[in-house]
Amino acid sequence: MRFCPYAQRAILVALAKGIPHDVVNVNLKRKPEFLLERNPMGKVPTIERADGGILYESLIVSDYLDESYPNRPLNSSDPFQKALDRVWVELFSSVTTQFYKVLFSAADATAQENHMKEFVSAVARFDKELTRRETKFFGGDNYPGMLDYMIWPWFERAPVLKVLFPNLYDYESAKQEHPRLESWRQAMKEDPAVKEFYLSVDIHLKFMQSHMEGSPNYDILEESGAKL
Amino acid sequence: MRFCPYAQRAILVALAKGIPHDVVNVNLKRKPEFLLERNPMGKVPTIERADGGILYESLIVSDYLDESYPNRPLNSSDPFQKALDRVWVELFSSVTTQFYKVLFSAADATAQENHMKEFVSAVARFDKELTRRETKFFGGDNYPGMLDYMIWPWFERAPVLKVLFPNLYDYESAKQEHPRLESWRQAMKEDPAVKEFYLSVDIHLKFMQSHMEGSPNYDILEESGAKL
Repeated sequence: MRFCPYAQRAILVALAKGIPHDVVNVNLKRKPEFLLERNPMGKVPTIERADGGILYESLIVSDYLDESYPNRPLNSSDPFQKALDRVWVELFSSVTTQFYKVLFSAADATAQENHMKEFVSAVARFDKELTRRETKFFGGDNYPGMLDYMIWPWFERAPVLKVLFPNLYDYESAKQEHPRLESWRQAMKEDPAVKEFYLSVDIHLKFMQSHMEGSPNYDILEESGAKL
Repeated sequence: MRFCPYAQRAILVALAKGIPHDVVNVNLKRKPEFLLERNPMGKVPTIERADGGILYESLIVSDYLDESYPNRPLNSSDPFQKALDRVWVELFSSVTTQFYKVLFSAADATAQENHMKEFVSAVARFDKELTRRETKFFGGDNYPGMLDYMIWPWFERAPVLKVLFPNLYDYESAKQEHPRLESWRQAMKEDPAVKEFYLSVDIHLKFMQSHMEGSPNYDILEESGAKL
């Protein structure tokens, strides 16, 4: 599913490591048989190896790709640092949870405002952690690591919040308050893997609006004539 | 928390690999400051290294221990098999979810019956998978691996269901229908790590009853004079 941030995680890892692959996009509202045969839960990402081996769950797939293709390792070679980065990926679930709650709580203005506050404060922890690390990326100064790629998909989408909810999300203040995270965001946008799969705020916005209206339009890219 | 199956995962790994450690049990209803200072979520297991490094989340901690102590590896050395086993740990969440739903849905008999059916069918998938593997343990014929230890804590507790809900859970039939899984259960009970941390059905039952009544008694072992 071209707009799924979890599927994007696996694709970013494959692109960053130069792993040859084909992408088969699916309609998650009408899950195709070929997906359900491979993954009874019908979730993305699901990967299939040339020998027919199947794996799913974004973190499992990403770790597997990193381990089985030793070039440009994304996880730290230090088991403690690797585990610590994975704890941060877990902590990031507070960002993703609040992100979707903001999108889907429009019926209750107070709840929505609270979710937005919690979203902003969850993001702030990542600014603080990056400041503590004193590196360009969470994975170091040279290039993004596993943690960077696992959290990026939601940062690519976050600017839609300022368009959808201009009164709730002060993006300009957020940038000023979190300069380190803003520099990170700019550096990530220049990363070749991120660039190759990047979609504009406008496209993400259109997809999310269709999703919020209850009928996600999986063909927005095709319809807009953009590169799939 | 002596009765937490997630904490037990980390302890089983430490015991299986002979990793020296002290255990500090906590009251999860009145979380001590020393826990919250180390893990803002106040969850168990939380581990602290001699140098003060902190990690939490049972799977992250278990993988970290396995990676940083290379003796008796619990994860497969084949990245694909390791990932596949982790997919099975994810699938096991359907067992744990239904287990707790059964315990906490006593107010609605029909719902409870359905949860029990789903619990039994989720467990059946593991019997089928073990039969497919044709090994004594999920981790092979010699000794339990990571997948075995990650799912064991709920199998240690499952017999409480037949005591609590004799009309809903036919444990004798379950054993006959899933002979492979029953042999696995017996073999696991003989594993030294499992044995060392094992609690009787009676103790688990007492704790769970106090939990279901809304005030989990974390001191049951102490009160019963048993080994902590």
